[in-house]
Amino acid sequence: MTILIKNVQLGQELTDIFIDGRFIKTTGAGLRDNADRVIDGTGKAVMPGFINTHTHAAMTLFRGFGDDMPLEQWLHEKIWPYEKKLTEEDVYHGTRLACLEMIKTGTTCFNDMYMKYPPVLRAVEEMGLRATLGATIFDYFQPEVAAQYRREVEKNFAIPRSGQISFALAPHAIYTVSGDTLQWVRDFAEANGLLIHLHLAETQTEYRNAVKDFGLSPVRYLHKLKLLSPRLILAHCLYVDDEEIQLLAGHGVKVVHNPNSNLKMGSGHAFKYCEMKAAGITVGIGTDGCGSSNNLDLLEAAKTAALLQKGWRRDPTVMRADEALECITQNGAGILQVNAGKIASGALADLCLIDLQSPAFTPNFHFASNLLYAASHGSCVDTVVCDGRILMENRRVPGEKGILENTACTVRKRFPNSF
Amino acid sequence: MTILIKNVQLGQELTDIFIDGRFIKTTGAGLRDNADRVIDGTGKAVMPGFINTHTHAAMTLFRGFGDDMPLEQWLHEKIWPYEKKLTEEDVYHGTRLACLEMIKTGTTCFNDMYMKYPPVLRAVEEMGLRATLGATIFDYFQPEVAAQYRREVEKNFAIPRSGQISFALAPHAIYTVSGDTLQWVRDFAEANGLLIHLHLAETQTEYRNAVKDFGLSPVRYLHKLKLLSPRLILAHCLYVDDEEIQLLAGHGVKVVHNPNSNLKMGSGHAFKYCEMKAAGITVGIGTDGCGSSNNLDLLEAAKTAALLQKGWRRDPTVMRADEALECITQNGAGILQVNAGKIASGALADLCLIDLQSPAFTPNFHFASNLLYAASHGSCVDTVVCDGRILMENRRVPGEKGILENTACTVRKRFPNSF
Repeated sequence: MTILIKNVQLGQELTDIFIDGRFIKTTGAGLRDNADRVIDGTGKAVMPGFINTHTHAAMTLFRGFGDDMPLEQWLHEKIWPYEKKLTEEDVYHGTRLACLEMIKTGTTCFNDMYMKYPPVLRAVEEMGLRATLGATIFDYFQPEVAAQYRREVEKNFAIPRSGQISFALAPHAIYTVSGDTLQWVRDFAEANGLLIHLHLAETQTEYRNAVKDFGLSPVRYLHKLKLLSPRLILAHCLYVDDEEIQLLAGHGVKVVHNPNSNLKMGSGHAFKYCEMKAAGITVGIGTDGCGSSNNLDLLEAAKTAALLQKGWRRDPTVMRADEALECITQNGAGILQVNAGKIASGALADLCLIDLQSPAFTPNFHFASNLLYAASHGSCVDTVVCDGRILMENRRVPGEKGILENTACTVRKRFPNSF
Repeated sequence: MTILIKNVQLGQELTDIFIDGRFIKTTGAGLRDNADRVIDGTGKAVMPGFINTHTHAAMTLFRGFGDDMPLEQWLHEKIWPYEKKLTEEDVYHGTRLACLEMIKTGTTCFNDMYMKYPPVLRAVEEMGLRATLGATIFDYFQPEVAAQYRREVEKNFAIPRSGQISFALAPHAIYTVSGDTLQWVRDFAEANGLLIHLHLAETQTEYRNAVKDFGLSPVRYLHKLKLLSPRLILAHCLYVDDEEIQLLAGHGVKVVHNPNSNLKMGSGHAFKYCEMKAAGITVGIGTDGCGSSNNLDLLEAAKTAALLQKGWRRDPTVMRADEALECITQNGAGILQVNAGKIASGALADLCLIDLQSPAFTPNFHFASNLLYAASHGSCVDTVVCDGRILMENRRVPGEKGILENTACTVRKRFPNSF
C-alpha cells in the first residue's frame, strides 16, 4: 500500500509526502500521483503523530469518577476498590476507548502501564496504534505476591505481539514494589532488551517516605539498587534536586512530565524542565491516565507544560512552542526507542494532518505557535496515519460510535450505583 | 421567534427548554412542540453561554506574532509599533474573527478593552454577541493626551448601540493612566451608570513600580484615588495581599483571573482564588487577548484556572469543576451585570449545546467534571444561542470561511514582512 499526501504544509512550507508500506519513503513538492491512495493536503499541515510517554489507557473507565477529592480518599474509596472489580473484558473496552481518544487527538504511539496485559494487547492491536505496553507490577513488599507477579510477567512476555507493540516492565512505584523485585525487574529487562516504566518522585509525601523508609531520596534509592540506566523511564520526577538530575542524566535515564495530572492531583507545579534539558535528559510529556487527569489529549498536555514552565519561573522565554512540540514527538520517540516522531524519509509513517481552516490558525505567522498555544487541543487533527495505515480521515474513525456505546455500557454494568 | 430545545441534558437530568424572543420562558420535560423552531437536544447537554470577563478581541490580529519573548521586547518590538499601524478596518476584521472564535467555543458574552471603539461596536453587533465594550484610555501622564481621550470617550459614548451592547470605560493601567484621569473616569462612570475595566497588579514589576512611584501598592493606590466600587472590574490581581483582598471585597470590586495569559507572559501562577472567594469577591475568568495568550477558548481557561489552583496549593479539593464553571457563567454575569449565565425561566436566552457523543463524555459519571476536565475545550460546543438568536448550529457559523479569509488577508496586507 502506498499513500501520497499532496500539497500539505510542513513547518511554513508546502510539500508532498510519499508513504510506501510502513515508512515515509520521500518528501518534496511535486511528487507524482502514482500511489494507491492520494490524500489532498490542501489547507492542512502535517505533524509527526504525537507520542504519549506515560498513561494508563484503560483508566478511561474512571473518567470523572471522583474528582476534586483528597488523594488518599480518592485512591481508597474510588480507584482501588473499583479496580479490583474490573474484568479482562472491562479493561479491553476501556483500552479501546483510550485508543479511539488518542487517534482522534493525533496520538499514534503511547507508553502504557496497566494490569491485565492480554486484553490491553488485544485492544491496541485491533485499534492499530503503536505502543509500549507495560505490565504493572505491585508486590506490596510481600515475597509471595512478588513471585506471582514474576510468573505473570514471564507469561505475558511470551504472548506473541505484532511489530507495533513492545513489551515493557512497569513496576508501579518504590512504595508499592520492594527493592528485591525492582532488581529482578532490572535483570529481566537487561536480559530481554526491555524498557522499564516506573512512577517516581511524584509527590512530596513519596519523597519524605523514601527518606524515612530507605534513608535515601527516591532517585538515590534507585541508584543504590542499580536501577538507573538508559532502559529506565521515570514518570513525574517532580521532587528531584540538582544532584539527582545529574545522576539521571549521567545514566541516560528518561523522564516524563505529566503537567495536567500533577496539577489536578495537587502533586505540585514546579517541574524542573530547564534543568533537566540543560543536563541532557530526554524529557517527554504524558497525559497520565483518565483517573487522575481526565483526557488523553497530548497537545493540551504540551500546552500546559509550556505555560506552566513560563509561569512558575516568571520567564516567558523558557520551553518555547517548538520545544514543547519536540517533547511530544522526537523526544517521545527517543524515549520509546521507535523510529518515529519526525517527518523524514526512512521514518515510520506515523503522522497526522492538522486542519488549518479555523480561527486558531488565522493569521498564520507561526505554525508551531498556533498549533500549541491557539489550537492547543487534538480537535484540530483531521487525519491520522500509523505504521502506514490510515486510522482516521475527515475526523472519523471506523466504528467509533460502537466503541463509545460499548464502553459506556461496560461502565454502567460494573459501577451500577455510581451515576 | 420561539425556539424549543427538546430532550436536552441539564446537569444530570433530561429536560426541554422553551425560548420566547430574547428570554428563556420555561424549562421542563415534555413541553409542547408549538415553537417556530424545534432543536433536537438528544445526545447534547445545555450550558449557559460562557462569559469571558477580560479580553482584547481585535488582538486576534496578533495571534502567534512574537511568542516566547521577554515581555518588554514583545511590547516594544512587536505589539506597540504594529498596533500604531492598525486602521479601523483592521480592528473591524480582527474583532469579527474574535467573535467567530468565541461563538465556536461557546462564549455568548464578553468584556472587551481595545482602541477604536466604532469598528469594534460594528463587528460585535453584526456577529450577534452580547458585550461590554470598553474604550481603552491611555494618557501616559500627559494632560493634553488625557483631554483628547476624554473627548473620544464622550464621542463614543454618544454613538447609538443595540441592547446587547454596554459601553464601559477602560483605563489601561495605573502605569499608563494618571490619577487625575482615573478620577475623571470614576466620575464619568458614576454619572452615567457605567462599568470600569482596568488591568491591575498583573506583574511583580507593576507592584514594585507602584510602591516606588506612588508610595502605595496598586490596590491601595486605587483606594486612595477612591476608585474602589462595585463598578470596578480588575483584570489579573495576581499581586495582592490579604488586607488588599479585604479592601476589594469591602468595596464590591470584581476580579478577573486570566490564568493562561498570566502563565504564558511569565507574570506568575499563584492567583489567590480561595482567599478572594472566602472574602466574598465575585471572581470571573478571562482569556485575555490573543496577543498575550493565543486563543479565546474560555472553557480551556477555566480548566487551567482549576488545575493551577490545585497544583500550586498542592490541594486537589480546591476550585472544583462546578466552581470553575460558575466563574465563566454566573460569576461572569454578575460582573457584567447581565441577566444571563444560567438556564432558568426569565433569564436571557444565551446558551450553548454541548455534543456528548465523544470520548470526553464517556463514561458519564459527572457532567461538570467531563466538561471541564475532559472536553476542556470549546470544540465540544455544537450550537450557540445568544439573545434568542441561533448563532451557530451543527458547529457552523454562517459566513465563517469569509471571516477567516478577510482577516488573514488584512493581516498579510498590514504586516507584509512578518511571515
